[in-house]
Amino acid sequence: MKARVEITLKQGVLDPQGKAIANALEQMGFAGVAGVRQGKVIEIELAETDARRAEESVRSMCERLLANRVIEDYTVELGI
Amino acid sequence: MKARVEITLKQGVLDPQGKAIANALEQMGFAGVAGVRQGKVIEIELAETDARRAEESVRSMCERLLANRVIEDYTVELGI
Repeated sequence: MKARVEITLKQGVLDPQGKAIANALEQMGFAGVAGVRQGKVIEIELAETDARRAEESVRSMCERLLANRVIEDYTVELGI
Repeated sequence: MKARVEITLKQGVLDPQGKAIANALEQMGFAGVAGVRQGKVIEIELAETDARRAEESVRSMCERLLANRVIEDYTVELGI
């Protein structure tokens, strides 16, 4: 079973990487860029075939390793 | 209008970051992790309101700055 985790900075947390992209786009002549936020996407291939147990396992991975819960949120999608 | 760009490594391109995550998960006791791939997600807030022109603009941003087309693929979603 495949799981897809998306990790994004919480609202209000400064995103210097996004800001750098926005500045670069502006300098390259792209007008009208009001804001840029960057996040991560992690695709995990699991041996587990039970969806509920797979989701539990992936959420535990997020809490313990993948996401920094102080500044980041995450979403988990299964079976894609 | 909001655009969402997802940038992933092309199939066959080595992903050391994904490999490091897979190793860390295994060492933490998560069994059955067959593979991990990491990508980026970039959310862009645009002043443009016309969907076709917004998509054209974002694709151009991807080709010129956001994605390395030699090793990366990208997808663009609009209006989310």
